[in-house]
Amino acid sequence: MKKFIYTAFIFFTSIQMVSAQRAPRLSSPDVDKNDNVTFRYYAPNAKEVLLSTEILSKELAMKKDAQGVWTATISKVKPDIYPYSFKVDGVEVADPNNTYVFANERFKRSIVNIPGDKPLVHALRNVPHGKISYRYYTSKTLNTTRRLLVYTPPGFNMHDGKKYPVLYLIHGGSDTEETWTKVGKANLIADNLIADKKAVPMIIVMPYGNVRPAPMPDFTNDVINDIIPFIESNYPVHTDTEHRAVAGFSVGGGQTLNIGLTNTDKFSYIFSYAPYTATEEFAKNFTNWNPDAKKINEQLKLFTISVGTEDFLYESVEGNLAMFKEKKIEVEPIIVYGGHTWMNCKLFLANSLQQVFK
Amino acid sequence: MKKFIYTAFIFFTSIQMVSAQRAPRLSSPDVDKNDNVTFRYYAPNAKEVLLSTEILSKELAMKKDAQGVWTATISKVKPDIYPYSFKVDGVEVADPNNTYVFANERFKRSIVNIPGDKPLVHALRNVPHGKISYRYYTSKTLNTTRRLLVYTPPGFNMHDGKKYPVLYLIHGGSDTEETWTKVGKANLIADNLIADKKAVPMIIVMPYGNVRPAPMPDFTNDVINDIIPFIESNYPVHTDTEHRAVAGFSVGGGQTLNIGLTNTDKFSYIFSYAPYTATEEFAKNFTNWNPDAKKINEQLKLFTISVGTEDFLYESVEGNLAMFKEKKIEVEPIIVYGGHTWMNCKLFLANSLQQVFK
Repeated sequence: MKKFIYTAFIFFTSIQMVSAQRAPRLSSPDVDKNDNVTFRYYAPNAKEVLLSTEILSKELAMKKDAQGVWTATISKVKPDIYPYSFKVDGVEVADPNNTYVFANERFKRSIVNIPGDKPLVHALRNVPHGKISYRYYTSKTLNTTRRLLVYTPPGFNMHDGKKYPVLYLIHGGSDTEETWTKVGKANLIADNLIADKKAVPMIIVMPYGNVRPAPMPDFTNDVINDIIPFIESNYPVHTDTEHRAVAGFSVGGGQTLNIGLTNTDKFSYIFSYAPYTATEEFAKNFTNWNPDAKKINEQLKLFTISVGTEDFLYESVEGNLAMFKEKKIEVEPIIVYGGHTWMNCKLFLANSLQQVFK
Repeated sequence: MKKFIYTAFIFFTSIQMVSAQRAPRLSSPDVDKNDNVTFRYYAPNAKEVLLSTEILSKELAMKKDAQGVWTATISKVKPDIYPYSFKVDGVEVADPNNTYVFANERFKRSIVNIPGDKPLVHALRNVPHGKISYRYYTSKTLNTTRRLLVYTPPGFNMHDGKKYPVLYLIHGGSDTEETWTKVGKANLIADNLIADKKAVPMIIVMPYGNVRPAPMPDFTNDVINDIIPFIESNYPVHTDTEHRAVAGFSVGGGQTLNIGLTNTDKFSYIFSYAPYTATEEFAKNFTNWNPDAKKINEQLKLFTISVGTEDFLYESVEGNLAMFKEKKIEVEPIIVYGGHTWMNCKLFLANSLQQVFK
C-alpha cells in the first residue's frame, strides 16, 4: 500500500502550502487482503501514541518513523467493523485520515472495516439498495423539532398502494439517530437480508433517543405520541399491532423494554439488545410490576433479549431475564460471546430482521 | 448554564463507573442568549489547550479549573455556524461533547451554531421540510458503488406527475458527500427559501466528489455518465438543459467549472464558489481553450464565480475571472468579505438558489 501514501502526499502539497497547519494526508487505516490492518497517525512531537481499538482488549503502542508518522499493524483480524481511536500523549483522537466516524455525542472514534473474503451480513453488496431519509418531525412531547432517519426498502413506492410493517430501532445512550446506519449498518443488513429473502421488506425508523438536558422526560411518550403518528401519516404503513416492532441497544435496549412492555397493545415484537436498565423509568415501570402475563404473552408474537457473555451488563441482563421469568412473561434470551459492542449489535439486529413480521 | 453541566455529570455517573476510560460529559459549546459562547474540554493532565475557531483569526488559550476542565469564552459572536477544534498540547481534537462534526476526510473539527435573534438563512425554522436521502449508485466510470445525497423539496411526490429541476452541488476537496448538508445546511437553506417563495422547488444532488487514491480520473465523467443518468432514471426530473445546474465549493468549485464549461449543452447554470483550479484537469481544459463564446453565452442562462476578499484563493479567482473575460465568456463575479469558509459558502448557495431555474 506504500505507493498510495506517497501519491497522496504529493497530491496535497499544493493545498498544504496555503494551509500549513494541516498534517499530511496518510493512508489510514490500510486493510490488506489477508485481513491485516495498519493504522497511521502523524505526530512528530508526540512522546507516546497508543492505538485503542475494539479489535484487541488492550491498547497497542504505536511506533514512530523518521517522518513523525506513528504506525501499528494488527494481523489477521476477524472480519467485522471495529471502532478505534488514537491516544496521543493521553489525548484521545479520531483518525484524521478516516472519514468513518462513530456517530456519538461523548466521544470521537473512527471505524475500520475488515471486509474479509465472504461478504458479511452488513457488507455493501451488489443488491438493490433501500434509501435512508433524514427527516424532521415536531415533537409535542419535547416541544421541539427533532430528527429521525427512515429506511425504506428497495422498490419502495410511496403511492403504489402497498403497505409496509415498521420497526422502530433505537440507538445507545450517547449515540445519535445516525449510529444505527453509520456504525450498525442497519440499512445494508436489511438490504442484504431482503435480497436473500431472509427478511420481509419493511420500513425501519431510527429516532434520536436522547432527551437532554435534564430533566429527562419519557422518551416513550415521544415515540408513542409523536414519532409513530408522524410515520403513520407520512408513509404507507400498516397501523395494526402485528406490523409494529421496537428494538434498541444499551440505553436504547432499556428504552425498548419501557416502550414495548408498557404498550403491548401497540407492538407485537420487542427486541432488546444488551439493555441498560438502571434508569428511573425502568424502576418506575417494573419494580412493583404486576402484569397480566397471559394477556401480554398472547399479544406479543416475539420478545427477545440479547446480550454477550463479556458485556459489562451481562449480570444486569441476567437479572432482567430472571425478573421477566418470575413475572411469567415469555422472553427468549439470545446469549452470545462478546462484549457491549456494535459488532454484536449488528448480529442481534440481523437475527431480529429474520424473525420479525413473519 | 451551570446547572446543565452538573446535571449532566450526575446523569452519567452510573454509566461512567463501568467505562472509566471516558471523560465526564460537559456542556460544550454553550451559547447564551447574548451570543456569547463557552467551550469546555476535560484534560486534567494537559499543559496547554488552545481553542482554534473560525470565529477568531487567532487561537485562544483556554484556562483550566481545579477539576481539570479547560474553558474559553468568546463574547458577542456574530450569529453563524463556525468550525472549531481544541489543540491539546499540540494535538488537534474535535469537541468530544459536541455531536456536530465537520464531515471531512482530513481533519476532525466540531461545529458551533450561534443562532442569533432573527433566523439566519440556514436556520431550522418551523416551515415544511424536505427530505435528504442517502443513496448508492453504481459508477461505471470509477468501477465502484458510490454514495450521494438527494434533497427532495417539501411536498415532493415521486409519482404525481410533477417534474423538478436539478442542482448538482459539489463539496470541497477533502469534504464528503455529507458536508453540504452537515456544514453547509443546504437542505435548510432550500427549505427556508422555498417557504419564503424566494426559490423554486428543486432537487439538489450532492455527490461524493473525491476520486482517490490516485491516479485521479475525471470526476466530470462520473457526473455526466453515471450520476446524471442515475438521477434521471430514479427521480421525476426535467431532463433538458434549462433545468440542470451545477455548483461547487473550493476543489468542487474547480470541478464545477470543468463539468459545466465542458458540457454547456447539459447545464444552463454554473455557480462556482471560491474555485480551486490548480489542477491538471483545469489546465488541460482551459490553458489553450478556444471557446465559441457566443454560443456558450447563449446556452448559459447564468454563470457566476463567488469569492471572499480574504480567501487564500482570491488572487487565483481574479485570474480565473480575467481569463474568462479575455475569452469573452460572460461571468458574473460575486465578491464578498471573508475567507475560504463555509460561512461564506452558505451565502453563496443562498444567492444561487434565488437565481436558479427562474
